Amino acid sequence: MKNLHHPSREDISIFGILYALSEPVRFSIIEQLANGTELTCGAFKLPSTKGKSTMTHHFKVLRDSGLIFTRVDGREHYTSLRRAEIEERFPQLLDILLQAWQTSTEDVREQTLRVV
Amino acid sequence: MKNLHHPSREDISIFGILYALSEPVRFSIIEQLANGTELTCGAFKLPSTKGKSTMTHHFKVLRDSGLIFTRVDGREHYTSLRRAEIEERFPQLLDILLQAWQTSTEDVREQTLRVV
Repeated sequence: MKNLHHPSREDISIFGILYALSEPVRFSIIEQLANGTELTCGAFKLPSTKGKSTMTHHFKVLRDSGLIFTRVDGREHYTSLRRAEIEERFPQLLDILLQAWQTSTEDVREQTLRVV
Repeated sequence: MKNLHHPSREDISIFGILYALSEPVRFSIIEQLANGTELTCGAFKLPSTKGKSTMTHHFKVLRDSGLIFTRVDGREHYTSLRRAEIEERFPQLLDILLQAWQTSTEDVREQTLRVV
């Protein structure tokens, strides 16, 4: 099993979160986890044009920022949002960001969410 | 007078805003404008270690994201926050982000706000 790094709650930085979410595909990953679900990599609706290494990088940026937790079980990776910890550290931030995403233009959302 | 580009309110993207604010010096610039003031470049409290071209770049990223407006008068640049427009496009976003910045560790804030 790979030893994946997850920052402690105290080490979660607002700048790391903002950088992680400044990329539409990464924001889309967080949106899909927002209801508290845990997803395998294959269960995400993601752009078909992105290669595996790009997606691995996106998940790493999200994990390093403290936004997601990756649980490894055998060869499968299960990803969830560290919602309670983020909420405790930065109250309301995730809700307001998700709301801002919803109010973004349909054009942007369609570009981002074009699925396989 | 240089013709500086400012995106229209409709073209302000949540991703551009998040990217612009993912850099501590840029976030600090926004914090200093949050009370509605208009500042000349020399009036900002900014790290003394940053060169002029770096700062010019930071202001350009903020302007391109739609966060700031730059008014040119002779050789002076006056910068203000496009607060009403951002609020209209993404309600509460700026307030929550500024609050998250406030709750960041003193260490990070001290590193960022070390002044000349």
